[in-house]
Amino acid sequence: MANSKFEYVRDFEMPDPLLSNTWIVVRVDGRAFTKMCAKYNFEKPNDRRALDLMNTAAKAVVTDMPEITIAYGVSDEFSFVFHKSCVLFERRESKLVSTVVSTFTSNYVYSWSAHFPDSPLSFPLPTFDGRAVCYPSVQNLRDYLSWRQVDCHINNLYNTTFWSLVQLGGLDNKEAEKTLAGTVAADKNEILFSRFAINYNNEPEIFKKGSVIFRDYELVDPDSHNVASTIDSQAMPVTQSKTQKENDKKRRAKARILVEHMDIIKDDFWDRRPWILSNKPGKIPKET
Amino acid sequence: MANSKFEYVRDFEMPDPLLSNTWIVVRVDGRAFTKMCAKYNFEKPNDRRALDLMNTAAKAVVTDMPEITIAYGVSDEFSFVFHKSCVLFERRESKLVSTVVSTFTSNYVYSWSAHFPDSPLSFPLPTFDGRAVCYPSVQNLRDYLSWRQVDCHINNLYNTTFWSLVQLGGLDNKEAEKTLAGTVAADKNEILFSRFAINYNNEPEIFKKGSVIFRDYELVDPDSHNVASTIDSQAMPVTQSKTQKENDKKRRAKARILVEHMDIIKDDFWDRRPWILSNKPGKIPKET
Amino acid sequence: MANSKFEYVRDFEMPDPLLSNTWIVVRVDGRAFTKMCAKYNFEKPNDRRALDLMNTAAKAVVTDMPEITIAYGVSDEFSFVFHKSCVLFERRESKLVSTVVSTFTSNYVYSWSAHFPDSPLSFPLPTFDGRAVCYPSVQNLRDYLSWRQVDCHINNLYNTTFWSLVQLGGLDNKEAEKTLAGTVAADKNEILFSRFAINYNNEPEIFKKGSVIFRDYELVDPDSHNVASTIDSQAMPVTQSKTQKENDKKRRAKARILVEHMDIIKDDFWDRRPWILSNKPGKIPKET
Amino acid sequence: MANSKFEYVRDFEMPDPLLSNTWIVVRVDGRAFTKMCAKYNFEKPNDRRALDLMNTAAKAVVTDMPEITIAYGVSDEFSFVFHKSCVLFERRESKLVSTVVSTFTSNYVYSWSAHFPDSPLSFPLPTFDGRAVCYPSVQNLRDYLSWRQVDCHINNLYNTTFWSLVQLGGLDNKEAEKTLAGTVAADKNEILFSRFAINYNNEPEIFKKGSVIFRDYELVDPDSHNVASTIDSQAMPVTQSKTQKENDKKRRAKARILVEHMDIIKDDFWDRRPWILSNKPGKIPKET
Repeated sequence: MANSKFEYVRDFEMPDPLLSNTWIVVRVDGRAFTKMCAKYNFEKPNDRRALDLMNTAAKAVVTDMPEITIAYGVSDEFSFVFHKSCVLFERRESKLVSTVVSTFTSNYVYSWSAHFPDSPLSFPLPTFDGRAVCYPSVQNLRDYLSWRQVDCHINNLYNTTFWSLVQLGGLDNKEAEKTLAGTVAADKNEILFSRFAINYNNEPEIFKKGSVIFRDYELVDPDSHNVASTIDSQAMPVTQSKTQKENDKKRRAKARILVEHMDIIKDDFWDRRPWILSNKPGKIPKET
Repeated sequence: MANSKFEYVRDFEMPDPLLSNTWIVVRVDGRAFTKMCAKYNFEKPNDRRALDLMNTAAKAVVTDMPEITIAYGVSDEFSFVFHKSCVLFERRESKLVSTVVSTFTSNYVYSWSAHFPDSPLSFPLPTFDGRAVCYPSVQNLRDYLSWRQVDCHINNLYNTTFWSLVQLGGLDNKEAEKTLAGTVAADKNEILFSRFAINYNNEPEIFKKGSVIFRDYELVDPDSHNVASTIDSQAMPVTQSKTQKENDKKRRAKARILVEHMDIIKDDFWDRRPWILSNKPGKIPKET
Repeated sequence: MANSKFEYVRDFEMPDPLLSNTWIVVRVDGRAFTKMCAKYNFEKPNDRRALDLMNTAAKAVVTDMPEITIAYGVSDEFSFVFHKSCVLFERRESKLVSTVVSTFTSNYVYSWSAHFPDSPLSFPLPTFDGRAVCYPSVQNLRDYLSWRQVDCHINNLYNTTFWSLVQLGGLDNKEAEKTLAGTVAADKNEILFSRFAINYNNEPEIFKKGSVIFRDYELVDPDSHNVASTIDSQAMPVTQSKTQKENDKKRRAKARILVEHMDIIKDDFWDRRPWILSNKPGKIPKET
Repeated sequence: MANSKFEYVRDFEMPDPLLSNTWIVVRVDGRAFTKMCAKYNFEKPNDRRALDLMNTAAKAVVTDMPEITIAYGVSDEFSFVFHKSCVLFERRESKLVSTVVSTFTSNYVYSWSAHFPDSPLSFPLPTFDGRAVCYPSVQNLRDYLSWRQVDCHINNLYNTTFWSLVQLGGLDNKEAEKTLAGTVAADKNEILFSRFAINYNNEPEIFKKGSVIFRDYELVDPDSHNVASTIDSQAMPVTQSKTQKENDKKRRAKARILVEHMDIIKDDFWDRRPWILSNKPGKIPKET
């Protein structure tokens, strides 16, 4: 039986390519995570198990999709950056977004029990939504990631102070909120230190900085090059021989995938890891 | 600390609303399911456990998103239909697609062990991609669903005959392929019957028709109305009072969600279930 | 010399098809027409020469693009409706919008001197912008056109009263504005009648109703059919033989293009001219 | 009378912003210009009057829209480049495309008689379509313009040789086509020189190079800076004081708009005119 009578319905599918030569960020966000936190008794202000689970899922996404050059996560969100030369799925937006979201969700649910052995999942299950945004220049991309990391810092300082006031200071939520209204960063640091003897600088890096995921190659002398402007001026992916491509692929597959908690706002992070922006795998570090 | 310096990056987010007053179909497709089939020894031509798992996941999606009026699945794909009056997430494409894909994936992974108790999941985990397509008229929507159901039939007849030739007839894959080259439906029916005494009509409905998921209300006398043209001419969602909305919501929540394997190409299915196109919940059937 | 080195730049062109089986409205708007009015001394509240010029340009667009089934204009705007089955330029948005805008502009400038023999054009020249909007159902389309015609009425009643107060009543603009603040239609009718002995109903139809442009065939008995629901349920363009297509084309080319000033909100207009929604040319009326 | 009942139709308008921080090229193309050429007896292979008219229209567009930093034209097409920092019309695609197309068309029709005093326009009038493409980096943009200029060269060399064979060599079109089949640039130069004593290098620059339109400021020493990488790394428009903005606006308005016929593929053009990429007006040259 021919299906031709109905096949015209394919004409309604709309093309959705993302603009060439731009950095694609797919951000995944937890849906209704406030309820999730309550239901599974996530610790306040940060639940280390929940963050580790997010990182496990994100690492699986980066492993499965070598086109992702860096990922950054905080709280219940994770941003995955596809290199601007990426042509995966012909850069179709729906394909990219749905694949990232599905891989993330799949791993999150699968790895739940390893991180929450005493709290089995129940309905409704955890889910995530996602969206893609394109950034034309390295500076735009870095500003995006800086935006997320600054947000991490702002929220964490607030939450750390808020929950100290509640958990250690005996205030109720409204009182704590009122106490913090109008305060700047220095005030919050002061409250933490003077009232609770907490030095915010000594808080765990994962809470203060969020999590950065990338492939591990040998660090590079930051003085030796200027990646950003070279990258921006690269109009199109450099044509590579088949052998080169295979080599790159192998090296990428061999590279360890790191989950770090460090500053990605300053230049140093980027200067020492030129492969993140260049998409050319570096040297595999020797085992030590 | 203010984050304003970096917040300009939000300007790069592009709006992606889907056209108002059109039926939104989100189709979810298994990624690399050929490998999945091999890895977990799915039975050929149909693995009942795998189909049941798909249906379990799809039913969870329909349960969680009452804006879905009907869903149809076959093999490793499932189509979810949002009523044309739906304004969920302001009809933003990424939100709709990613939420459906994530909810589907989440439930698929979670329910795996119940359907495959002897085959625990391993990496890479099952994932799905998804996309949205808009259909302006009832006929377009029904033609879309007919297209999928005809496809189900064509593929199942082919696969049933192919695997009979291989599993019962002792042919290898190439020989079976060659045998079937150029045959029409009648030929395949004949091969099944004459060589293997299989009457295709007696094959399980779930294999022949796929799976339809919808809310269960009392069936309606098909002569009493003409849904399609009424629905098409409805320019906008009928304004409802708060009470009406609450009533509809309650009835929808109360309705059982059915998973059926039946013809959705002919009018009868639609005529007897006007609520699928009208989005007005029917009467809850009495328990028997 | 090969141009291949640079041809990659074509990859940046994004597809922009408009959704199939929807009515495409391209609306053209005068840019900076307030200045235009002042510069060329358009009469207030309506300049008949300016409206006639708009109609001349719009008629040329309808003549050149037989895919346009109806057009409606008021003030310095004109809406052109492409039938939902239209596949001109593969429904590419930029092509459709720019072609309509260019044809309109071209004719407007060309025909200026015929309508304003005493006011030659000078820089900056008149220009128009444009945009496309898709409407899925006949009711949506008719509501769009009704919206424009109601707008015409509201504005014209206001402007007629306002300029009567100024030109006949000796008020300055601010006083006239103040007089009209908070008035409803009945109040304005009353002001016109009691103060200036103007019966608004006797104002020229072109001012009250705007201008409708369509092809002229024999009117039809409105009781004999129900176009809208038939049209909506038409999933795809009816397949026509080459001969039929040629016949339709000829009849369309033969039909006079009318510029009328009449109600298009009520059913009567549409019921008597089924060809506007069906896109099937009617009978050419006999010359009288 | 309220118009609220119909105003819902505005919900069908889709947003169409172009990606921030990218160069917007709007290309305008003549519609059915082959017929135009025949109808008005354009000279072959190039009609100087027609090219001058194109340039007149394009110059008017650049004058009216100071956000355009450079324009390039050849044959019946013209490309207008909006600086990547441009926020005109909130970067809405339809607005930008339709305004450029309308302004171009308006001026083309208006200025026709000045360039073709002996060939008055007749129906159908000349029209143009248009489309927008975004380019993320300076290199992409320059490659786009190089693509058009190389195309100009390739076509002009072909056409010059073809029409020499026909007009001077007495061949008919088919014979000329056959003669040129498979020839490379050197062959065509040779044919021109040996058969017709034409040195292609001596052909008018406007034919060989097309037309470049930009604002005229004092040329700059090309060694003193590196515009492209600076521009690319500029994430967002530099914030300017009101005074600075006003100054820039005045200088832009004061600058002469040049129509030149020169190489824009090599660096020199760009290095000596940094304002084209930087969007910072240079010094107004002293009158000589």
